[in-house]
Amino acid sequence: MHKVVQNILRADPAVIAGLAECGVATVHEAQGRIGLLADYMRPIYRGAKLAGSAVTISAPPADNWMVHVAIEQVQPGDLLVLASTSPSNAGYFGDLLATSLVAHGGVGLIIDAGVRDIADLTEMGFPVWSRSVFAQGTVKETLGSVNVPVVCAGAHIYPGDVIVADDDGVCVVRREDAAAVLVKAQQRVLEETAKRERMASGELGLDIYSMRERLAAKGLIYE
Amino acid sequence: MHKVVQNILRADPAVIAGLAECGVATVHEAQGRIGLLADYMRPIYRGAKLAGSAVTISAPPADNWMVHVAIEQVQPGDLLVLASTSPSNAGYFGDLLATSLVAHGGVGLIIDAGVRDIADLTEMGFPVWSRSVFAQGTVKETLGSVNVPVVCAGAHIYPGDVIVADDDGVCVVRREDAAAVLVKAQQRVLEETAKRERMASGELGLDIYSMRERLAAKGLIYE
Amino acid sequence: MHKVVQNILRADPAVIAGLAECGVATVHEAQGRIGLLADYMRPIYRGAKLAGSAVTISAPPADNWMVHVAIEQVQPGDLLVLASTSPSNAGYFGDLLATSLVAHGGVGLIIDAGVRDIADLTEMGFPVWSRSVFAQGTVKETLGSVNVPVVCAGAHIYPGDVIVADDDGVCVVRREDAAAVLVKAQQRVLEETAKRERMASGELGLDIYSMRERLAAKGLIYE
Amino acid sequence: MHKVVQNILRADPAVIAGLAECGVATVHEAQGRIGLLADYMRPIYRGAKLAGSAVTISAPPADNWMVHVAIEQVQPGDLLVLASTSPSNAGYFGDLLATSLVAHGGVGLIIDAGVRDIADLTEMGFPVWSRSVFAQGTVKETLGSVNVPVVCAGAHIYPGDVIVADDDGVCVVRREDAAAVLVKAQQRVLEETAKRERMASGELGLDIYSMRERLAAKGLIYE
Amino acid sequence: MHKVVQNILRADPAVIAGLAECGVATVHEAQGRIGLLADYMRPIYRGAKLAGSAVTISAPPADNWMVHVAIEQVQPGDLLVLASTSPSNAGYFGDLLATSLVAHGGVGLIIDAGVRDIADLTEMGFPVWSRSVFAQGTVKETLGSVNVPVVCAGAHIYPGDVIVADDDGVCVVRREDAAAVLVKAQQRVLEETAKRERMASGELGLDIYSMRERLAAKGLIYE
Amino acid sequence: MHKVVQNILRADPAVIAGLAECGVATVHEAQGRIGLLADYMRPIYRGAKLAGSAVTISAPPADNWMVHVAIEQVQPGDLLVLASTSPSNAGYFGDLLATSLVAHGGVGLIIDAGVRDIADLTEMGFPVWSRSVFAQGTVKETLGSVNVPVVCAGAHIYPGDVIVADDDGVCVVRREDAAAVLVKAQQRVLEETAKRERMASGELGLDIYSMRERLAAKGLIYE
Repeated sequence: MHKVVQNILRADPAVIAGLAECGVATVHEAQGRIGLLADYMRPIYRGAKLAGSAVTISAPPADNWMVHVAIEQVQPGDLLVLASTSPSNAGYFGDLLATSLVAHGGVGLIIDAGVRDIADLTEMGFPVWSRSVFAQGTVKETLGSVNVPVVCAGAHIYPGDVIVADDDGVCVVRREDAAAVLVKAQQRVLEETAKRERMASGELGLDIYSMRERLAAKGLIYE
Repeated sequence: MHKVVQNILRADPAVIAGLAECGVATVHEAQGRIGLLADYMRPIYRGAKLAGSAVTISAPPADNWMVHVAIEQVQPGDLLVLASTSPSNAGYFGDLLATSLVAHGGVGLIIDAGVRDIADLTEMGFPVWSRSVFAQGTVKETLGSVNVPVVCAGAHIYPGDVIVADDDGVCVVRREDAAAVLVKAQQRVLEETAKRERMASGELGLDIYSMRERLAAKGLIYE
Repeated sequence: MHKVVQNILRADPAVIAGLAECGVATVHEAQGRIGLLADYMRPIYRGAKLAGSAVTISAPPADNWMVHVAIEQVQPGDLLVLASTSPSNAGYFGDLLATSLVAHGGVGLIIDAGVRDIADLTEMGFPVWSRSVFAQGTVKETLGSVNVPVVCAGAHIYPGDVIVADDDGVCVVRREDAAAVLVKAQQRVLEETAKRERMASGELGLDIYSMRERLAAKGLIYE
Repeated sequence: MHKVVQNILRADPAVIAGLAECGVATVHEAQGRIGLLADYMRPIYRGAKLAGSAVTISAPPADNWMVHVAIEQVQPGDLLVLASTSPSNAGYFGDLLATSLVAHGGVGLIIDAGVRDIADLTEMGFPVWSRSVFAQGTVKETLGSVNVPVVCAGAHIYPGDVIVADDDGVCVVRREDAAAVLVKAQQRVLEETAKRERMASGELGLDIYSMRERLAAKGLIYE
Repeated sequence: MHKVVQNILRADPAVIAGLAECGVATVHEAQGRIGLLADYMRPIYRGAKLAGSAVTISAPPADNWMVHVAIEQVQPGDLLVLASTSPSNAGYFGDLLATSLVAHGGVGLIIDAGVRDIADLTEMGFPVWSRSVFAQGTVKETLGSVNVPVVCAGAHIYPGDVIVADDDGVCVVRREDAAAVLVKAQQRVLEETAKRERMASGELGLDIYSMRERLAAKGLIYE
Repeated sequence: MHKVVQNILRADPAVIAGLAECGVATVHEAQGRIGLLADYMRPIYRGAKLAGSAVTISAPPADNWMVHVAIEQVQPGDLLVLASTSPSNAGYFGDLLATSLVAHGGVGLIIDAGVRDIADLTEMGFPVWSRSVFAQGTVKETLGSVNVPVVCAGAHIYPGDVIVADDDGVCVVRREDAAAVLVKAQQRVLEETAKRERMASGELGLDIYSMRERLAAKGLIYE
């Protein structure tokens, strides 16, 4: 039942880098408002903005054995994505595991549980989005799986999916949709730049989006 | 039923500036410990300290149409205050709307729901106090109202009320009470300065406030 | 029933300083994974790392009278630890009390309730770990006790116990165990330094900890 | 600052009884989807369905002194509505106070805090909607007010407003709107009865409400 | 983007009935401890125990338009499973929709949002497992989809999957695994019956499961 | 480190029975308002009212091995009290363990975690107060301890302490204080009976407790 899938497909690194540049809110809009993880997933420090390929971990509560197993599967540019099979806020991950992960090219961690050593992780510039910060340790007693589909913070994530994360939270993009989503996201960035300039000059959204007639039709009254 | 009230009264800008200077905790005390919003309202970045006149928005859940309507009603020095008619953590507001709001003189946002693009908002120095940070977008389908009384994060706010916000949270002061509250708040600042000096020199609150007798009368025992 | 215990034993200052240096996660591990406070206890600013002797306060909800009583009992190097007898997020403590506490040598506050004036506390470099930030004031009407055992954020704390706190949270070490825990914690720091170097060089936890055989025995399958 | 308002206006008892009959969900719809208290307000037992005039209490956290004061103001058909000035889950109210309240004609309690003795209250058939059930006692030390406007569980309530409560939760109707809301609510009950019959016979909402065309216009695709 | 999938596969009714009989805890164990929905999903009344085929709904927050669309897709024995695309506790469903659903053979509702009219639903014997009970109404403005895969309360559910629900909560079984899971679940029921008898006679789990040696090997000490 | 303490002292059965009769709210008051467990501890069914001696379990998250160990230590009239060393809502306990526990004279369970099979437990009349209801299973991999002091739902509990539980929640009474607390609790019951009669006759708390003068002295104004 418990397994490690060793060969997973990943998206094009250039596409991944492009999605990181666009950011979570834009990517989420561009793909039709799907794929957001729950808003309790917060970064351990502000300002990180990245994307990577998901190496997924399905782990028992308060047991981080599978993190060690997963690191061997990491390739440069990968992110670990850990979902606990039962809710847990234990600290599965700290600066030792981060050191090991970085040594194999890992770029971050998305964990629907707890993390610890966050002062060290911050100093290392190693970004983590987690449900909680908690020094509570874990055991290495029970098997889980690596690179199987998981539900993490309410989102369904397949191994190799692209994870985009920044101060706004975390969003997953299906590997096979990544290139198409990037095109739409970049288009959106362009449009927003144009709109931002109009708005900065004082033009109202009411006029830019021609909302006045529809508001009146719905019955909005100005007093 | 849904309406936009266009002419609202505002407090004297000098009074508003004075209240900002005093800060949330002092203003809250000065007006008799009323008017605090719930403690889940947190700033998106630390260090902002301001006050402004409330342009209120009563919005449907996950629908930010009324924000566009509200921005047209904003005058320099105003803050938007958004209450959702049903609990929502959707991201009603991001950097485009902030750009538009700033262009009309808006100085911040108090929102009992979600906000997004917080890295951009932080870079712009645009302060927001919100219930959550969430990239989830909203629609523009259903009417709400602008400049009607709202209950936001547990506090009753009328259009034109003064909102004071800093790292401690958010407090509302009735427009018509603002000048009187400022007098009390400034008096309080003076008194606290004097007490701070006594305390810094090592004098105890037990003596400064003459508490020892009352403690003994209530039955406190020293072992 | 309500009392102030005036003479409490404290751990050796050198031991306390050593525990601060090791940090919460390491100390927690070193003493067998006990003593953590709940993960809702968060620092008001990042980067503080300290330890001190607990002067405990059992206080009624939203009543900070006993804080004044407790400050008189503080000796240099002590931390206040406040537990409310009923859940409360009121702001028991602000910059005035911090000024008084610092004047008597107090080094921080652990409070299973609210704190306010956090901008000032941050500027003072006065560290607080709290359940909430809330400007709501308190009264001085009802007695509590000082230097009695308390349950604070789910942990049992005796007066004079050593409290270790950093960005990961808060941990309590029994006063009488402090020296022994420090020895184990320092040993752990040494071991982790060695492991960190191996991991930084790319060696896997799977090999460093000889996990491969045990994983296979439990039935882990590589595909 | 603290006061007891002794003469409040109340709605017509027949209107109040009519609103109780209609129930919370219908009344809430009939008045334009306003006035609901937060969904954490739950009944201590299932099956109660009532309405009454609000005698409001603004009480300090964990202090039930004002409940005694309020009971003297109660007239037959009144409900107590208690809001704490700072969040509290203490048990402000138990079977003794319920006995006293019933003796003066009170019909229930809405409390944004805790209640206790719920087995006795259930046996008495005394309905309570509360934020929590908690045996934690309160003190009688600090003043509050009776029959002033309060914000209770996120809703603004004036003394004399009509409170409607059932298994779905709690809703407030402004005293002066009560008769008009009743007309609309009863109309709604009639319409729902007609629709219920059509639906029970198998007719679809898609047809009863003529939704098919609008769904197609918005772009819904059937596969 | 928004669609209604009209033809979905369903599991064998006899298998579905068998799974209902086994109950959530047993089915969850039998399929390897996967498929549970979050524990905030609670029944509106106690004692319901059922299973059915999932007709899934992906709905916008606080918009129940798609429920009407979904009911047309329901066949006898189906359950509606509603996931909101953004967190919502609005009351999407009440007694009118239940009447319509029952008329088409629907047997229950699983909703990661709110429900209302629960007194009527209880009287009808219509079971619902929901995140909240809330009278707050919804709109019919924005499209969603029917019979697409959804993440509901943290579990991934495909149209036609078998949903098992009772007082312990809700569990999903993949349609294609349902028959095999039933075999294991029934086996488990038999084994538990045998064990229950041994335990009822006073035999200890320590002996039934031969745990004593393993406990000693791990280092458990009896004092 | 992990141990089972086999001989614990228990309170007098007559005292325990007397405390059960008084109920949680009264016992809590009688012992000076200490010892309550957090209000998230709720009974799985309404109407149970009991007391028993605590056999305590300190268990790892999502691991119920120690429950089997603990049952061997149970004597007639004991209650199991389980605290997880890290927060967990997993279902540690179901009808099989209840059957085993009852066979050894156990009368109930207090668990700061999850429970399952609650329909069966309800039918058996086996009372449980828990943090959650969740079908999620546990493992038997890691040691904990039995009959050591634990912090359960925020309360410190020693083996052999008396646990009182009813619809209002759960309270712990120190074994050595139990007889004295019973005397005070019974006295309180008598006094309350007298007061209840006066209140039922319409006499006000304001007069029974002579509050009017003190209210006036504090400044309460009647309008």
